[in-house]
Amino acid sequence: MTKTNSGRFFEDYSHGEVIHHAVPRTLSGGERAFYHALYPARHAMASSDEFAKSCGLGAAPLDDLIVFHTVFGKTVPDISLNAVANLGYAEGRFLHPVHPGDTLRARSQVIGLKQNSNGRTGVVWVRTTGTNQHGTEVLEYIRWVMVRKRDAGASAPREMLPDLQRALRPDQLRVPAGLDFTAYDFTQAGEPHRLRDYRIGEKIDHVDGVTVEDAEHMLATRLWQNTAKVHFDATNREDGKRLIYGGHVISMARSLSFNGLANAQLIAGINSGAHANPCFAGDTIRAWSEVLDAAETAAPGVGAIRLRLVACKDGADAFSLRDAEGRYAPGVLLDLDYWALMPV
Amino acid sequence: MTKTNSGRFFEDYSHGEVIHHAVPRTLSGGERAFYHALYPARHAMASSDEFAKSCGLGAAPLDDLIVFHTVFGKTVPDISLNAVANLGYAEGRFLHPVHPGDTLRARSQVIGLKQNSNGRTGVVWVRTTGTNQHGTEVLEYIRWVMVRKRDAGASAPREMLPDLQRALRPDQLRVPAGLDFTAYDFTQAGEPHRLRDYRIGEKIDHVDGVTVEDAEHMLATRLWQNTAKVHFDATNREDGKRLIYGGHVISMARSLSFNGLANAQLIAGINSGAHANPCFAGDTIRAWSEVLDAAETAAPGVGAIRLRLVACKDGADAFSLRDAEGRYAPGVLLDLDYWALMPV
Amino acid sequence: MTKTNSGRFFEDYSHGEVIHHAVPRTLSGGERAFYHALYPARHAMASSDEFAKSCGLGAAPLDDLIVFHTVFGKTVPDISLNAVANLGYAEGRFLHPVHPGDTLRARSQVIGLKQNSNGRTGVVWVRTTGTNQHGTEVLEYIRWVMVRKRDAGASAPREMLPDLQRALRPDQLRVPAGLDFTAYDFTQAGEPHRLRDYRIGEKIDHVDGVTVEDAEHMLATRLWQNTAKVHFDATNREDGKRLIYGGHVISMARSLSFNGLANAQLIAGINSGAHANPCFAGDTIRAWSEVLDAAETAAPGVGAIRLRLVACKDGADAFSLRDAEGRYAPGVLLDLDYWALMPV
Repeated sequence: MTKTNSGRFFEDYSHGEVIHHAVPRTLSGGERAFYHALYPARHAMASSDEFAKSCGLGAAPLDDLIVFHTVFGKTVPDISLNAVANLGYAEGRFLHPVHPGDTLRARSQVIGLKQNSNGRTGVVWVRTTGTNQHGTEVLEYIRWVMVRKRDAGASAPREMLPDLQRALRPDQLRVPAGLDFTAYDFTQAGEPHRLRDYRIGEKIDHVDGVTVEDAEHMLATRLWQNTAKVHFDATNREDGKRLIYGGHVISMARSLSFNGLANAQLIAGINSGAHANPCFAGDTIRAWSEVLDAAETAAPGVGAIRLRLVACKDGADAFSLRDAEGRYAPGVLLDLDYWALMPV
Repeated sequence: MTKTNSGRFFEDYSHGEVIHHAVPRTLSGGERAFYHALYPARHAMASSDEFAKSCGLGAAPLDDLIVFHTVFGKTVPDISLNAVANLGYAEGRFLHPVHPGDTLRARSQVIGLKQNSNGRTGVVWVRTTGTNQHGTEVLEYIRWVMVRKRDAGASAPREMLPDLQRALRPDQLRVPAGLDFTAYDFTQAGEPHRLRDYRIGEKIDHVDGVTVEDAEHMLATRLWQNTAKVHFDATNREDGKRLIYGGHVISMARSLSFNGLANAQLIAGINSGAHANPCFAGDTIRAWSEVLDAAETAAPGVGAIRLRLVACKDGADAFSLRDAEGRYAPGVLLDLDYWALMPV
Repeated sequence: MTKTNSGRFFEDYSHGEVIHHAVPRTLSGGERAFYHALYPARHAMASSDEFAKSCGLGAAPLDDLIVFHTVFGKTVPDISLNAVANLGYAEGRFLHPVHPGDTLRARSQVIGLKQNSNGRTGVVWVRTTGTNQHGTEVLEYIRWVMVRKRDAGASAPREMLPDLQRALRPDQLRVPAGLDFTAYDFTQAGEPHRLRDYRIGEKIDHVDGVTVEDAEHMLATRLWQNTAKVHFDATNREDGKRLIYGGHVISMARSLSFNGLANAQLIAGINSGAHANPCFAGDTIRAWSEVLDAAETAAPGVGAIRLRLVACKDGADAFSLRDAEGRYAPGVLLDLDYWALMPV
């Protein structure tokens, strides 16, 4: 009996199946320190217990993307070990704050299957849910990947395509219990801009760039117990390069966006996301944002801002996204559409 | 009076002497986060408080090798600053779990001395013991190193060779108090294989490889307060390379072995260990294991598995260990013989 | 309205003005673990709760330079984003220990302004104060930087030069409440030398060298939420190099000084500091110290030692500092004059 995990192939998934992912994880201040060392993360809510308390929370939650990466990492051995491509995200919602001391686990339900016409691959849609030690759901998101078939001759499963929302409605966003921005300290947060200072269609160049190193993205990726070999093994690709985990680019871009969006404190929803081009060590990552929408929430002083966050690398102009044929420009790394909570 | 530590030379050790090593260290969730960032460590017991509780422990212990490296690091200024070679380990036993908040210190007793025939070096055997803030012993192991003499003309000490066990007997292993694998959750642990699923002589290729970077191994080595200059100073060797701390290879290999040995949760004993060849940045580390023995313990549901863990680098075939003359094959980095605790 | 911070220019500062810097920060054991991984830090007081308790403190404080870097990092967006040069430090005092769980914030008062004769830049002196969540001051220091003018034609402010002490008097140093070195454990601290074993004028070569990597200094600099682009963006300089944050060199040199100054446990004051030459990845940092002064304090068994700490890189001889014209020798990176607390 072989003991190692060779991952699932397309024909191993069945519609409606629930997969419980391995290795629960207790997070601590150590993961927070790492997040601040790996990314220029400065949002006050996740940086300071005092600031979080002044906004109605008991203590600073861990950065939302720590939660995302931790949950995502658990799914890799079951979902994307034999993935050819990570195709997209939808309907991501942050449901409950996570604090140091919490233990996260993850499960995924197969919600869509479609064999590709070549017969050798197929697309799998899963809805992944992260829960804490009390069974409270902290995160859910839909992700779809293209997965190889073990046997090209295997019969195709019945095609089931999920019905995905293009973007979450504001009323679908979950605001953390107690969150209150009426006494928000803009000086300590770092910028004076509140929701009403942003106009839909406004674009912001986040100015700074970070040149990334192999040691850094490997530390990051392992921290989330994501062990996909393409990120770690320089002998895996013919060019000797290690592909940087897409989540590393998401966190880098989100952190860079502090400069101009310092008050977009918490990520509430992920509407869609695409990793447009691969990123490698030596690339200098920059970011820009576009304001897509704005809304109120029921929480005092708390608004929601919908943003397109684009990460690009050397040679890409700020604000360029797609070419004339609608393809992503070569320097674009990430196109992420998300909702964040911000003082109104 | 010179203020800096030039380390001990062979003639500075005397049989039976006890050396108290400097700098006690309080460990926290920070060291755990680092361990997970530096290595693809995923064993559930050291990852999740909830999983550890379900196995009868109060909370997740720190990875056993955090304890080993922390204790080992303290010994470096007294034992191996002038070492020519780190020759071996024996009779290593993990005696008590270590948790965040615990403070470790270390002492070593000289248990063997043998001058080499060249008169310029000698071998020193020490039994090192790590204790926590309550004085409870958490780890002990024997290590022997070849050390330079300060003065080749100094007279040789009386030769004393310790009587070393080739391997610990299962009844010598210490199982943490309360450990109970009868309700073990194989799904959350990541693999279904229990002790009875492994056969003696079975070999497992752990599949994944990790290409190592200078920044990473220096972070790791400093984290254990091991400051041997050969790991940090690129001007120290003629080839400008920094030698990677052998413990970094041990942790990398042990973590890679999760894939196939996910249920070998806790290291209980180290029977022997050899650093067969040096490792440098740019090497891609892989690992394979061989099942050497299996035994029961008195704890409910807890068995012991004896494993040979071999780390190798680029160009070495899985399962190749020695050449026809009995020498380690060129790509072999580590040959470690240890006992781990696993559900029966 | 532009949303991003373009930093302050010389004409934006006014004498006496108080600037409250953004993003309070809660520190944890994670930051301590990082400090130990980034630097060969081994001073027992900041390493072990038990050691700190034996010296009259409730638990191990975070390394003093963690506090310095955290406070310093907050000032960067307001003080040095448009700085041409970081000119010096003076009158730095550590006022209260900082422990895991504490939240730091920072403010600066403008205490000096002087336009340069070229009309394009000016010098700004600020006194920066760090406070914890109780409003207790934990650190203060004066720093001066050369800042660009936005508009060379803007009129010069009234010149105000602060009156700086060349060095703090021993009676100005704040000894942490309760500190008592009468039961100090020299064995656990790592060296036998007490204050009376050092003579004024004594120089100590700290022996070890560390070759620095881009990944490491970026992790360090981000950890303190210092986001000055010159440290991160390889496209920012014509030579493609990333300038290493001066504080990284301070911490590396201070940590290397353990070897010879293991008992200089806590930094009490910073008299002056200059970053003599830039440091880049690949440089091997070494350090030497000169004993400048010694004094008693009112705390039992606690003395103060005044030290010059010099960091240098490859090619610089130990103990060489300035050339015949009084300029820093090319390999000198740092010249820091500070007071530390040591058993008498």
